[in-house]
Amino acid sequence: MNLSVGCTLEYQVIEPTVFIFNIEAAMTPEQIVRNETLSGLPGDPAERFVTTEPGNRCLRIQAPAGNLRIDYDADVETADFTDGIENVAEIPAGLVPPEVLTYLSPSRYCQSDRLARFADQQFGGLAPGHNRVTGICNWIWDNVEYLRGNTDSQTSACDTIVERVGVCRDFAHLGIALSRALGIPARFVSCYTPGLVPADFHAVFEAYLGGANGPRWYLFDPTRMANLDQLVRIGIGRDAADVSFATFFGQTTLTGMTVRAAAGSDASMDKYPAPGTG
Amino acid sequence: MNLSVGCTLEYQVIEPTVFIFNIEAAMTPEQIVRNETLSGLPGDPAERFVTTEPGNRCLRIQAPAGNLRIDYDADVETADFTDGIENVAEIPAGLVPPEVLTYLSPSRYCQSDRLARFADQQFGGLAPGHNRVTGICNWIWDNVEYLRGNTDSQTSACDTIVERVGVCRDFAHLGIALSRALGIPARFVSCYTPGLVPADFHAVFEAYLGGANGPRWYLFDPTRMANLDQLVRIGIGRDAADVSFATFFGQTTLTGMTVRAAAGSDASMDKYPAPGTG
Amino acid sequence: MNLSVGCTLEYQVIEPTVFIFNIEAAMTPEQIVRNETLSGLPGDPAERFVTTEPGNRCLRIQAPAGNLRIDYDADVETADFTDGIENVAEIPAGLVPPEVLTYLSPSRYCQSDRLARFADQQFGGLAPGHNRVTGICNWIWDNVEYLRGNTDSQTSACDTIVERVGVCRDFAHLGIALSRALGIPARFVSCYTPGLVPADFHAVFEAYLGGANGPRWYLFDPTRMANLDQLVRIGIGRDAADVSFATFFGQTTLTGMTVRAAAGSDASMDKYPAPGTG
Amino acid sequence: MNLSVGCTLEYQVIEPTVFIFNIEAAMTPEQIVRNETLSGLPGDPAERFVTTEPGNRCLRIQAPAGNLRIDYDADVETADFTDGIENVAEIPAGLVPPEVLTYLSPSRYCQSDRLARFADQQFGGLAPGHNRVTGICNWIWDNVEYLRGNTDSQTSACDTIVERVGVCRDFAHLGIALSRALGIPARFVSCYTPGLVPADFHAVFEAYLGGANGPRWYLFDPTRMANLDQLVRIGIGRDAADVSFATFFGQTTLTGMTVRAAAGSDASMDKYPAPGTG
Repeated sequence: MNLSVGCTLEYQVIEPTVFIFNIEAAMTPEQIVRNETLSGLPGDPAERFVTTEPGNRCLRIQAPAGNLRIDYDADVETADFTDGIENVAEIPAGLVPPEVLTYLSPSRYCQSDRLARFADQQFGGLAPGHNRVTGICNWIWDNVEYLRGNTDSQTSACDTIVERVGVCRDFAHLGIALSRALGIPARFVSCYTPGLVPADFHAVFEAYLGGANGPRWYLFDPTRMANLDQLVRIGIGRDAADVSFATFFGQTTLTGMTVRAAAGSDASMDKYPAPGTG
Repeated sequence: MNLSVGCTLEYQVIEPTVFIFNIEAAMTPEQIVRNETLSGLPGDPAERFVTTEPGNRCLRIQAPAGNLRIDYDADVETADFTDGIENVAEIPAGLVPPEVLTYLSPSRYCQSDRLARFADQQFGGLAPGHNRVTGICNWIWDNVEYLRGNTDSQTSACDTIVERVGVCRDFAHLGIALSRALGIPARFVSCYTPGLVPADFHAVFEAYLGGANGPRWYLFDPTRMANLDQLVRIGIGRDAADVSFATFFGQTTLTGMTVRAAAGSDASMDKYPAPGTG
Repeated sequence: MNLSVGCTLEYQVIEPTVFIFNIEAAMTPEQIVRNETLSGLPGDPAERFVTTEPGNRCLRIQAPAGNLRIDYDADVETADFTDGIENVAEIPAGLVPPEVLTYLSPSRYCQSDRLARFADQQFGGLAPGHNRVTGICNWIWDNVEYLRGNTDSQTSACDTIVERVGVCRDFAHLGIALSRALGIPARFVSCYTPGLVPADFHAVFEAYLGGANGPRWYLFDPTRMANLDQLVRIGIGRDAADVSFATFFGQTTLTGMTVRAAAGSDASMDKYPAPGTG
Repeated sequence: MNLSVGCTLEYQVIEPTVFIFNIEAAMTPEQIVRNETLSGLPGDPAERFVTTEPGNRCLRIQAPAGNLRIDYDADVETADFTDGIENVAEIPAGLVPPEVLTYLSPSRYCQSDRLARFADQQFGGLAPGHNRVTGICNWIWDNVEYLRGNTDSQTSACDTIVERVGVCRDFAHLGIALSRALGIPARFVSCYTPGLVPADFHAVFEAYLGGANGPRWYLFDPTRMANLDQLVRIGIGRDAADVSFATFFGQTTLTGMTVRAAAGSDASMDKYPAPGTG
């Protein structure tokens, strides 16, 4: 799948401020990034690094006081995860790879330790496997209202269990917390995806499960807003605390944000002609 | 129904301490108290008063440093609330009596304001009336595990929605919060009741509903531990904050507590012979 | 002191809705209400009643779908509480009147039970009395930032201790919770007061203390925004849950609100000429 | 410094259970482990791995139903961190190494995002550097009571700010949260240390600061219980969620736990004779 994604972020920087952006499409074997442009960086050299998970690309800049406007655009080709979801099992705790174990622990917004009884009660009777995580997503869809303006950056899975309202980030946090409470490793994925109204960054989650071709991370979107074939991953982490699209240290105000995402196989063909046809 | 109830409370009083006890059976038109004894009060005169709701009997004493042991016993005759629960409706907000409106508001342990969406989602589809509150109790019974040692005096209905475990007090708080969230006035009732293992004070709740004989408070016990015909009310309030069995102001340790409750119609006949038969 | 106060509340009523307003100036021996007008009530007769504390005036109406606009205005004369605050002592728990004891208990937004250690630590060393409650207010002023938009109707005193930001309601809740945690009865007061920018309802609190003329409730405003001589009380309760200016049962949106308050002794003289001078 | 440390953990394993233990002394360049014994492992091969931070040693076993008793002992030599704490500065956000940035984010028990105003207010005026983190520790020592039995595995830094009571784990979480809220990377350290009464695992924290010899992690113990020269590190992570001494997946009860830690340079000389002297 080929997608074009991007964003524009505008800030009023009151005092010299360090920014860490995590807006660029992740670079992984399953996600090829092409034609990438990033403009608006201040004169000082930006520092690039990877955090938490391979492929998470961070950009640290030092912005002087004044207006800052960052424009990012890229064409991305994502692998087709076509292997089915039938017969996808859960991985016993004894076999979860060490580097995945961290995704079983409670985190800032996913207090799975407090949700063990609820998860067991509600989902303990479902057959383990991919279908059980789908059961979690269905439960969230049925029981949590998607509504902007009722939650904020401090809202956690426990708040959402009580208040039953939230946005994509809250839905993902709850899906993660419930999965972990059942012993299923789960992690947060920030992403671009076409078709959101209004366009925005999106958040989904992944559970670590074992299919016929071995264990891997499987995507889930309890908001049902994204076509999971049309996701461009940005950052992966324990929860939103790991993958803020922007973190800053200094007095600064976000004054504008637009996000772009479009699927386009034709367009991409034009842009990336096959060898020999140019 | 005739019941014999009582308790023994023992304290090590480190410094002169004011105690407010709410352990005596309430005196209401529906609950007649006889043969009452209370021993162990220190020399200073105790002050008696009524709080929150008519019938709640409080006892304030000033205890010197040393050991304090209060023994209370009473025989109580409770009215038979035999009118049925069929056709018992909810009272529209416009018709709830002013003095009952306080039982629609959120309180310390019953944050009904945070539970509105959940209550509507889970119970909004049930036909309004006594049966809907029974539906709340059934849901609590099905979804919250009764287990000692997992909650404490700070545990609230929101905690219980998350953690799904608690004791009678927690069950009552959740029943109250969910009722209020649906617009049904609800209040906390501390009580004596036979048959608890181990014997202890008990907590249930009441919802204000309208039957054929007009509106009144109807009892509910989401723990299913009490026979509702065998309850001796002690205190009624918004939640446990209103009706602690003992509040004290001073350095003091509870060193022992036993609670007694037995049903006994024969015994009571012997004790209270009808006029002219003695 | 003479003040003119009032408000205009506008709603879009989506479905027939019961409203309970608590916007009228309280009528108490210390607060005389004159020239009162209330317009915009729908055709059905409004019901008036008093809740929680004597003088709290509530108005219950049934509004049909459509636009609702309530205008309230009154001239109010408040007593001069001129007895000093020197030598105003705290009331020992053994002497707090029974009807005041409820203001020692934790409530929805004032979880004094969780704040006992902090209150003792921070204020336990201050000499008991009016001055200690002033110490609480000074601490709040020094440690909590007054800022709109960071808190909402679910914010409680425990949130404010953590986040250190809020509005008048949050300041009052924290003052109340800390007072109760020290064993000082405290209650919430919603009011009109001149000089707020922007004009709005205000919230302060009262502590029950004992001066030379006997115990009474003393006003405190930890926001320092009100001139305490220029307060017109609306409602008094355990916390904001008791004295919402508007509670409604039905689908309804607040579309406009303006609040008016002005001090005016000359104006009031004109309006209320002494007998025989007309 | 030479220390002898160890522990005995006893479980009643109700059903076959996977355990992950993190009880072994970390192996790092600054901490040499000798004479290590570990007994009681069930027959199945144990799996060893490292998590979160280099040196954290985890042991995963599959225990059958029955009694499980693990005994661990080791002699450990720790480096002398003798470079002073004078002139130790904070690291500007722009210079924090990428792999350290995760220790600036909020985590399950260290919600630094909610504590920004408090931290700035209380510690913003202190000169940045090692001394400022000492100021945080002093504040915790002065304002939080060390007391067992008031907190549990769900207690977080926000709870401790409200309730002002806790144990070593709570003290460390609060120190971490306040440091991060000031922009200082901080992490949790579980450890053995002599002299605790009763003997137990201990928890302290580290802040990432920059001294004359370059940036490194500096130890802090807000409980003042440990001699920081006599710590044997076990695990390092964002908070206690990362470094539980035991995590298990299955129905199991901890039935006994003893912890051992003793400093002993003489003993260690006997035990580790220099080459050629044996």
